Amino acid sequence: MNRTELVKEIFSKKSFLSVGLDTDINKIPKFLLDFEDPIFEFNKRIIDATHDLCVAYKINIAFYECLGSKGWESLQKTLNYIPDNLFTIADAKRGDIGNTSAMYAQTFFQTYSFDSITINPYMGVDSVMPFLEFPGKWAILLALTSNKGSRDFQHIQENNEKLYELVVRKSFDWGNEDNIMFVTGATQPQELGGIRKLAPRSFFLVPGVGAQGGDLDAVVKAGRNEEVGLLVNSSRGIIYASADESFDKAARKEAQKLTDQMGEYF
Amino acid sequence: MNRTELVKEIFSKKSFLSVGLDTDINKIPKFLLDFEDPIFEFNKRIIDATHDLCVAYKINIAFYECLGSKGWESLQKTLNYIPDNLFTIADAKRGDIGNTSAMYAQTFFQTYSFDSITINPYMGVDSVMPFLEFPGKWAILLALTSNKGSRDFQHIQENNEKLYELVVRKSFDWGNEDNIMFVTGATQPQELGGIRKLAPRSFFLVPGVGAQGGDLDAVVKAGRNEEVGLLVNSSRGIIYASADESFDKAARKEAQKLTDQMGEYF
Repeated sequence: MNRTELVKEIFSKKSFLSVGLDTDINKIPKFLLDFEDPIFEFNKRIIDATHDLCVAYKINIAFYECLGSKGWESLQKTLNYIPDNLFTIADAKRGDIGNTSAMYAQTFFQTYSFDSITINPYMGVDSVMPFLEFPGKWAILLALTSNKGSRDFQHIQENNEKLYELVVRKSFDWGNEDNIMFVTGATQPQELGGIRKLAPRSFFLVPGVGAQGGDLDAVVKAGRNEEVGLLVNSSRGIIYASADESFDKAARKEAQKLTDQMGEYF
Repeated sequence: MNRTELVKEIFSKKSFLSVGLDTDINKIPKFLLDFEDPIFEFNKRIIDATHDLCVAYKINIAFYECLGSKGWESLQKTLNYIPDNLFTIADAKRGDIGNTSAMYAQTFFQTYSFDSITINPYMGVDSVMPFLEFPGKWAILLALTSNKGSRDFQHIQENNEKLYELVVRKSFDWGNEDNIMFVTGATQPQELGGIRKLAPRSFFLVPGVGAQGGDLDAVVKAGRNEEVGLLVNSSRGIIYASADESFDKAARKEAQKLTDQMGEYF
């Protein structure tokens, strides 16, 4: 999915919500365990309940990988089930030397046909380039993450430029706003505004609203551009809103709360 | 496998060789494609041919993941086939917010029972800690990698301390030489000596000898400690030494060349 298509979807739905499918076999409603593929069954109902509200699904690969080959089958079925007009994100945080990154790109863009994948930039240029060679696909680089540990390394600075700012600046030597997005945590809205100045036309994937405590209004004020330029993700706050049989209705309600708020910005 | 056991294996074999199983379906000898599981068949023969020479196998997860659920089955069979006295490394370069890193740790230490996993430290403390909670298991943190892109971010410095040095220093707040190792590329032996000063008792996983051009002698001179403290990995230089039916013999010959050289340091 290219940028024009994504922006069109956002304006059509008046939503820039990404729903995170961090589907944990230990957290889903117990009645689903009687199904042949409980993970897919859960995702299917969440997708049915939310696909008209959100513009993207972020699939947290860790939660599928931990189930072995069966988890990858659930992942494939989930991906097949997501309607074509929704943007898909493999939240995989990959990155390795060139020949290995090329294998990861092949995995997530071809074996599985995600629109995008999150990339850890620590290993630099050759760890990122292989992901930029697929037209219409996206590398979403970690810039400033939403977690406590983001303070450990991402803020170190040389010549008044912090590591996360250097990541953003340098990435424009490798790609552009049509194939690179940035992860910018909702928990640090001030810094998010600074990143917007460095990357005025880029999309940001913003995790951390909901369970991690980020504030939607602060994020929008600091990070919005003319095309919105934000994909705000909520995972646990939506998909685990309830643990009973009507979990999908509860999930829709939580998604709706966010999209109602998002609608005010259009 | 704990450090005492690893050191014992190294001194017993007079080897600190890790063989990298970057097994690529497009590069293995064609006759193997007639087998039900060509990837496992290739690995089995490489392991048979090299397990008395090396002390570790590093499995590059990208090459299995790209085959979907079938690849994970080949991975499991390979791991089961590696003798217990060899150290196993999941070269996965994972790292995410705490609850997700916990899933990755579960995957690689429990679903698959690797001794260790490579970790990308960009996201800081909570991305690393979940891997340190498994007795006898190891987190191998990327410090200074062997690739061209390592120059992009790993060398930026604040207060005369480079990012990769900060990673090493800070990691001692989180763990110690019994549960953390560092990736230090063979292509940068001078810096490797500097990292040794920061982490005198730690093990280093050193990729980049062979196909990437690193020099074994320079690595040993810069990085060895009393317990050797090095796992020097070669992947393509060994496993793709030949593409014909006797590829396993050719792989053994290449491994032997390295271990002959390693033997001189004992």
